[in-house]
Amino acid sequence: MSGVDTEERELGTTFLPRFDAQGLIIAIAVDHATREILMVAYMNAEALEKTRETGLAHFWSRSRQALWLKGETSNNVLRIKEILVDCDQDALQLVVEPAGPACHTGARSCFYRRLEGDVLNRIGE
Amino acid sequence: MSGVDTEERELGTTFLPRFDAQGLIIAIAVDHATREILMVAYMNAEALEKTRETGLAHFWSRSRQALWLKGETSNNVLRIKEILVDCDQDALQLVVEPAGPACHTGARSCFYRRLEGDVLNRIGE
Repeated sequence: MSGVDTEERELGTTFLPRFDAQGLIIAIAVDHATREILMVAYMNAEALEKTRETGLAHFWSRSRQALWLKGETSNNVLRIKEILVDCDQDALQLVVEPAGPACHTGARSCFYRRLEGDVLNRIGE
Repeated sequence: MSGVDTEERELGTTFLPRFDAQGLIIAIAVDHATREILMVAYMNAEALEKTRETGLAHFWSRSRQALWLKGETSNNVLRIKEILVDCDQDALQLVVEPAGPACHTGARSCFYRRLEGDVLNRIGE
């Protein structure tokens, strides 16, 4: 693990985000009020830095290969309330206050369908 | 998007999981009772198939390059209650009943630390 002790990474107090071979870490945004998962995206080191600096969630778009401020065009920013880190520090949970629907489709959460058999059904909002 | 119409993928009823260049999709396990995020891992097509077949969460380990049944050695399996799919179908939310602590460290959830300034602090369980 890049010279970092596993025990320190898993149980220690030092923030040692573990970016993958593509330089990315998973970031899951959850609503601070309901704890509902709103969306999942990736961050690179710059997106993480900007997020911590501004208090607004920034991500890295793999398809566009660009940094993006969530809500840049829609104004539906995600204000960071707290950041939780998982055991091996390759995933972050962003506890956020959403300014509006988090999904670009207009849904509150991106997870608006349930797999039932082989079919996706819309779930109540 | 590999010949699949974006509108169909985002708003349709057809399950069209979108594996990335490494053949992986993000899977987030949440406790069905509390909706707390327990862990995050990756699935390949086989892990997803096994999960749907058996009703127990299977993942793909990038470090070991192997399929694993969560709980194989610890017995702390994750029983699938439902699977939610996100807008662009590159992430799954597994709503599960955990048989025990989900984290290999013995914590209920892998997200047991909060980033405060530059320091990680353990949060209450």
